Amino acid sequence: MPDVIATFATSDPARFETAAVALLRVDLGGIPGDRHYGFTRKSGAREPWYPRGTEIRSGRQLSLVSEEELAIVAAAMGVPAIDPGWIGANVLLRGVENFSRLPWGSRLVFGAGAVLVNEGENVPCRQAGGGIGRAYPERDGLDRLFVKAAKHLRGIVATVERAGEIAPGAVEVKLPMKQIWPGVRLL
Amino acid sequence: MPDVIATFATSDPARFETAAVALLRVDLGGIPGDRHYGFTRKSGAREPWYPRGTEIRSGRQLSLVSEEELAIVAAAMGVPAIDPGWIGANVLLRGVENFSRLPWGSRLVFGAGAVLVNEGENVPCRQAGGGIGRAYPERDGLDRLFVKAAKHLRGIVATVERAGEIAPGAVEVKLPMKQIWPGVRLL
Repeated sequence: MPDVIATFATSDPARFETAAVALLRVDLGGIPGDRHYGFTRKSGAREPWYPRGTEIRSGRQLSLVSEEELAIVAAAMGVPAIDPGWIGANVLLRGVENFSRLPWGSRLVFGAGAVLVNEGENVPCRQAGGGIGRAYPERDGLDRLFVKAAKHLRGIVATVERAGEIAPGAVEVKLPMKQIWPGVRLL
Repeated sequence: MPDVIATFATSDPARFETAAVALLRVDLGGIPGDRHYGFTRKSGAREPWYPRGTEIRSGRQLSLVSEEELAIVAAAMGVPAIDPGWIGANVLLRGVENFSRLPWGSRLVFGAGAVLVNEGENVPCRQAGGGIGRAYPERDGLDRLFVKAAKHLRGIVATVERAGEIAPGAVEVKLPMKQIWPGVRLL
């Protein structure tokens, strides 16, 4: 079974980077005090189809990344490693194949009690790449390089379906169809 | 392009059935005054994995059905037609193949301004089937029959991503990957 390796947060809403914490307590709005907390958010560069600043439903309460995919991205960028905190992630897990491609609507059921809904792939941006750049100041252009290297490998964003805790330990992944039709075999 | 044929609502939160309205005005919580309005809801029989009454994220702000699928269900049940209002739907549309199987996370961009997020297939229940039964009182057991006949044909539930109106007219369906990676061809 997949498992959570570590969790990350920041209590400063102005700060993009996160730092390791023992566990996360989430409610239905996300991580209380976090910059992404809430049911709604303002649209930005990721939603060019809305006028910037439009209040929209938020699917980005938490950011999750996988150890396997970050290793691929680090290798492609020629850096020894990528700390999930540098790119603002909240949960580092392992054991889910093609994690960034996990079907939208999949549920992540954490042993510690919280349940998250996969709201789709996270799009790598230069802001996250800049966090890697600050860790390797001898290298130029890592911010742009991250945007290319991390495509389809930057994990997912998620919302909270059930409040609770997220902590190192087992996590069960439920695909949407299995969840909607328990016991029914699909064609 | 697919289009909206009609919209339905009820102003009585105690009432399951809906009735035709000229248009729907939605905000980020759904249809103001509707029984499914809100960012959260209490879990029920559809989520047997949660204790009943647990406050969870709501993915069921609106219910959408397709003309083509309802015709298949009506034929399978041996009734002349199914009015979307009898089963509590809010939007009747046509022109989306296998509408109930639309990928989770797909966006429905309505010409009248609102944008909805597909939160997955709606599971047919006896309550909705009962609405059909009341319309054909000479027939017994339509409530149970609906549960079987409408599997994978009962449309979807959705949340509001952008506030606005939903009215008869064109609707654009955006699949999640196209939306996340505009211009990028996926393997």
